[in-house]
Amino acid sequence: MRNVTTETLTQTFLDYCGPDTSPRLRFLLEHLSNHLHTFVRETGLTHDEWRKAIELLTKAGEITDDERNEFVLFSDVLGVSSLVDMVNSRPEATSSSVLGPFHILGAPDLAFGGDLKQDNEGATVVVRGAVRDPVGNPISGAEIEIWQTADNGLYSNQDPGQPEYNLRARLQASHNGGYAFTTVRPAPYTVPDDGPVGELLHATGRHPWRPSHLHFIVMAPGYRTLVTEVFPSDDPYLDQDAVFGVRSDLIMDYVEQTDHDLVPDEFEAKSKLTSPYYSVDFDFVLSAETAE
Amino acid sequence: MRNVTTETLTQTFLDYCGPDTSPRLRFLLEHLSNHLHTFVRETGLTHDEWRKAIELLTKAGEITDDERNEFVLFSDVLGVSSLVDMVNSRPEATSSSVLGPFHILGAPDLAFGGDLKQDNEGATVVVRGAVRDPVGNPISGAEIEIWQTADNGLYSNQDPGQPEYNLRARLQASHNGGYAFTTVRPAPYTVPDDGPVGELLHATGRHPWRPSHLHFIVMAPGYRTLVTEVFPSDDPYLDQDAVFGVRSDLIMDYVEQTDHDLVPDEFEAKSKLTSPYYSVDFDFVLSAETAE
Repeated sequence: MRNVTTETLTQTFLDYCGPDTSPRLRFLLEHLSNHLHTFVRETGLTHDEWRKAIELLTKAGEITDDERNEFVLFSDVLGVSSLVDMVNSRPEATSSSVLGPFHILGAPDLAFGGDLKQDNEGATVVVRGAVRDPVGNPISGAEIEIWQTADNGLYSNQDPGQPEYNLRARLQASHNGGYAFTTVRPAPYTVPDDGPVGELLHATGRHPWRPSHLHFIVMAPGYRTLVTEVFPSDDPYLDQDAVFGVRSDLIMDYVEQTDHDLVPDEFEAKSKLTSPYYSVDFDFVLSAETAE
Repeated sequence: MRNVTTETLTQTFLDYCGPDTSPRLRFLLEHLSNHLHTFVRETGLTHDEWRKAIELLTKAGEITDDERNEFVLFSDVLGVSSLVDMVNSRPEATSSSVLGPFHILGAPDLAFGGDLKQDNEGATVVVRGAVRDPVGNPISGAEIEIWQTADNGLYSNQDPGQPEYNLRARLQASHNGGYAFTTVRPAPYTVPDDGPVGELLHATGRHPWRPSHLHFIVMAPGYRTLVTEVFPSDDPYLDQDAVFGVRSDLIMDYVEQTDHDLVPDEFEAKSKLTSPYYSVDFDFVLSAETAE
């Protein structure tokens, strides 16, 4: 169009999309261009501000490698990653929450009641619960994957001092949907703030802390796979998670216990429990795969 | 906030910004987060689509180097760069248009009527005009920088076969604001489409062509610097510029001429004009630096 104006640009952009553009891509681009263009118009974005944005993206590209993706981190601290989780959550299921960058494939199996803590420093947590469908029926044989930080706030793939699959495991729910294991209490940690995301955090007076959490992926045939994380109710960063991952149904109490007899015999680590230890109960609800 | 929802996320994000955040940054982030979050909500962006976006940004980072910035190119083909030009244009001045990635510092001076074409292949164009203020007064001594492609559609810094500053010059307007030079007719060319931007163009059936143009930067003390480009009225890509740079006031006629006597003696290349040659008249209007 030879007379593009601030008012005609968005339609001109859409008119450029050819007839073979997939309807979904056209829909996404229609909304993307509308928002991008409205943003520029209503802020009167200056050339200097535009150059600063390009500089931040360029720096993000430079700092991104196989271990760290600064674009994911931008998405996280801007709330976009969590929002994608939320709009794809099912109201009848447990909320989903960020997968994060620390998941790796190949975690070893752990038996019912097994001990994930092993030689890790820190408080012992006895975790149990069940996997259920939205009306409360157990989902027997559901697969549960768990990963978490050690007591120093680092994941095994961030910390050469930890064994490769430290604090990572795959569990299978029992015939009544139950799961049980012991582990170490995870620690709060900071997202990387030495790059352009850190520049944004510093300019807005934001800290880079995330509340401590256990990561879970729960899957079963016929059900939507749930990617989530659960948070202790007494974490100091619960109200200010740098990546907006906390949902009220993902908060669980770490109940301080001293009575070892409360722990069933199936727990491998029962005999070496510290005193006090913590107990946590958390159920997962999966929605049917076909749910709209 | 421990109960972030799709509805409360944007406000939660803004509440994170501390009291020392600059008002302008807070304003930009308020609009940015609102548009990003609304985009995700109204499109129901899936995890797969989010991952695809992250992949495109990651690839853009990988292909970006000192000579090529894929983030600028994304901004260009999405119309964002042109929109930033448009919202920062003054209605009483010549429209601004994209600087593009091929400008370099250090272009040599060219005298009034000088010949930029030299040994370049292609049709000769006799260019002249004046630099004026919005009421028509000449701006004497304005500085004019010009750069353009050779007949093969390449800029000197893209083409090892061209001298370093081929088809680049700085001119000074005369006492009555006039400028004059001869050059070669520029050629249409394609933006790089072998990276993630090309992936977007191909998926939407878009071509990567830009209409041919002459780039100009015009500056004078007391006036806003004008970055613009001017296009021939007969270019086949005028209505479908890949980067949305065309404005109606930036289109000029290349008038075919055979009468060499029409060319004033001040033109250095008058004696070696081809027949036919082209003549182009284009005036630049600068707005006052203080204009709001």
